[in-house]
Amino acid sequence: MNAVDIILAKRAGQSLSNEQIGYMVQGYTAGSIPDYQISAWLMAICWQGMTAAETAALTMAMVASGDHLDLRLATGLPFVGDKHSTGGVGDKTTLVVAPAVAAAGVPIGKMSGRGLGFSGGTIDKLESIPGFNVNLDREQFIAAVKNVGLVITAQSASLAPADGKLYALRDVTGTVESLPLIAASIMSKKIAAGASGVVLDVKHGRGAFMKTLAAARALAETMVTLGGQVGLPVRAVLSSMDQPLGLAIGNALEVGEAIATLRGGGPADLWAEALALGRELLLMAGVASDAADADARLNQARDSGAAFDMLRRMVINQGGDVRVIDDPALLPTAPIQMPLPAPAVGYVAALDAETLGRASVALGAGRTVKGAAIDFRVGFVLHKKVGDAIATGEPLLTIHAARDAAARDIAPQLLAAYEFSATPPLPLPLTNGVVR
Amino acid sequence: MNAVDIILAKRAGQSLSNEQIGYMVQGYTAGSIPDYQISAWLMAICWQGMTAAETAALTMAMVASGDHLDLRLATGLPFVGDKHSTGGVGDKTTLVVAPAVAAAGVPIGKMSGRGLGFSGGTIDKLESIPGFNVNLDREQFIAAVKNVGLVITAQSASLAPADGKLYALRDVTGTVESLPLIAASIMSKKIAAGASGVVLDVKHGRGAFMKTLAAARALAETMVTLGGQVGLPVRAVLSSMDQPLGLAIGNALEVGEAIATLRGGGPADLWAEALALGRELLLMAGVASDAADADARLNQARDSGAAFDMLRRMVINQGGDVRVIDDPALLPTAPIQMPLPAPAVGYVAALDAETLGRASVALGAGRTVKGAAIDFRVGFVLHKKVGDAIATGEPLLTIHAARDAAARDIAPQLLAAYEFSATPPLPLPLTNGVVR
Repeated sequence: MNAVDIILAKRAGQSLSNEQIGYMVQGYTAGSIPDYQISAWLMAICWQGMTAAETAALTMAMVASGDHLDLRLATGLPFVGDKHSTGGVGDKTTLVVAPAVAAAGVPIGKMSGRGLGFSGGTIDKLESIPGFNVNLDREQFIAAVKNVGLVITAQSASLAPADGKLYALRDVTGTVESLPLIAASIMSKKIAAGASGVVLDVKHGRGAFMKTLAAARALAETMVTLGGQVGLPVRAVLSSMDQPLGLAIGNALEVGEAIATLRGGGPADLWAEALALGRELLLMAGVASDAADADARLNQARDSGAAFDMLRRMVINQGGDVRVIDDPALLPTAPIQMPLPAPAVGYVAALDAETLGRASVALGAGRTVKGAAIDFRVGFVLHKKVGDAIATGEPLLTIHAARDAAARDIAPQLLAAYEFSATPPLPLPLTNGVVR
Repeated sequence: MNAVDIILAKRAGQSLSNEQIGYMVQGYTAGSIPDYQISAWLMAICWQGMTAAETAALTMAMVASGDHLDLRLATGLPFVGDKHSTGGVGDKTTLVVAPAVAAAGVPIGKMSGRGLGFSGGTIDKLESIPGFNVNLDREQFIAAVKNVGLVITAQSASLAPADGKLYALRDVTGTVESLPLIAASIMSKKIAAGASGVVLDVKHGRGAFMKTLAAARALAETMVTLGGQVGLPVRAVLSSMDQPLGLAIGNALEVGEAIATLRGGGPADLWAEALALGRELLLMAGVASDAADADARLNQARDSGAAFDMLRRMVINQGGDVRVIDDPALLPTAPIQMPLPAPAVGYVAALDAETLGRASVALGAGRTVKGAAIDFRVGFVLHKKVGDAIATGEPLLTIHAARDAAARDIAPQLLAAYEFSATPPLPLPLTNGVVR
């Protein structure tokens, strides 16, 4: 077996065996196969694709490259759930759905990522809570699942290290976009993290990695099939990311919005999205008998205060300052809050989530280079979303910025994200089905 | 401009600009773009192809990476010819056509390669002449064109160095097979070597890199178009390499066969191939008025002894022992010469050139690793080729080997190269047209 023959087989459109795929992944992780051979192989995969069996083999080879948890065995619990989003703008869903599901009786052990490109990351959001520790070790992670029922920590470098190395190479060789590579990357981390079942939020639209519903559906189907092949139950909700989810964009602003939502306030679309994801976990865990029962249990968890209390317990367990959860006004707050007046009357016809995401990064809410510091305070709070009527001079949104000049500089970019119409536009769907 | 965007543009099927292609080639040559990005780019080129304009830009970027000769300016001669073969088994054509053309009035300044895989290389063959110097510097090369009219030297490392670096990377990343990359590699070296016109011998069939006539024609057309775009007249002869050319395979054996052919003996197909190539150079140079005139001049150069004398003069000029040219019995000779008897009677139906080429490498006539020593003495002399009748026990060929055991060990592999039939097969064509 040698790397060149394996590259040639893939470029010729052949299916690779488990042994061939394992040889490449192990060789790359060990350093015996150089990156220039792997990058040519990755491009050949982008070209010729991979069968479901090859994708499963790639995924399991990446899992085998590092440590591997089994949360059911480690905790003695009957079912531990996990959730993953392919990334969006204003996507603070984890902070709502995870406490609600945990409060409804399905423990959640989740590893999350940081912001990537124009989309935010749950770990960054949680770090806007002073003292919150996102770097739990294996034992702390397992203990939190068992004792609290809810834990969200940063991805452990010891799980699926091949994925990290491959992703870094894909990022600089134009090989990120590939269904089997994306699916294997996501699923290898989920499998290694050891949950009993995973709900995926596969987003599509302007503010998502997948621009079309068809592409999102293909990725969702690939991952659900993959889960079936490797024995991990997976369900994927297809959700729209043409406009941002909820109203807040920016780390502390989004934590505040999640708290409000768990307390029964907050934007309706955010809670609806949390229900769409949470019900699948309750059904997979066997805690709910059907969708209506699941929704009732999740609404009850919110209305009783149990979901909010679960968030408090997680924050306390991970060393965060729980006073900011009880009083979100104590969260880091930007000194400048500048409304952006509407330049027209009529209706909001479109609201480009990617443009808003990029603007939030420009303002300091995200990173343009890995490892850079971010400003938890900054971002936007939307007042008008698609379908909303606008009267003369009404504010479209409020800019939260560190400096007056930064707020003024970003305004034209924000205005460019809005399109207006004289008549009400068709409503945007929130979700477009579930792949089971 | 950055490498990832250029890789992404090519993988999306876009045409790259001259500037983008130059950026990649210059960056790779200078070491500022890493090999893992170049290998992904090369695989994307294998996938999406390149337009004629892109192929020309790639070629000229490789030429621009090093020194560049102009033999017409450097020598004051009106036309200096060059010849290149895509490689075959028993292909000693250069050693025949180059002296004949030079003797007919078209000086030849040629840089050649060493054996690659199962195909031999002219430089290896010439080194079987004791003392022959294949490492001429720029001034020696130019002086030989001017004063002798014929020179064959090894490829200078200072010409098109980007091609050497790219070829080495392609070799280990499964990206050798690609029309634009092959065409640019060949043509960049030809352009940098500075001839006024080039005849290409584009081989197809079992013993060639291109297995089909269609693939060979596509490569020929790509290179002829490329020559037109960069101002270098190019003609390509499409020749068959299903069976070996001539009768001798092996370095000294092939030199001996070339000498015999220049003296009016030798196999008919070898001289016919030399005429097919040589006439195009005479026509390009304006030395012959039409094909019949060109053939008459080449036959005259052979029959008068002028072509043979030209070979002698080149050997003397490059320090070789001319006594072996005058008496080829003095060439290095293998101690073992073992006939291979026919296992059947009837006709030779097929004779797999690649199998014979690989057997000659196994016997020591070629290399399995770069830089290894080769045995100039060993190889095969065919007695029966496609269409020949065979009586009981007649030898198919004679094995020239260093040891008795080596000859015996290789015999089964050689027998496997032959196919037999009870009735005469259709004759194989020698050439299949010319692309001008």
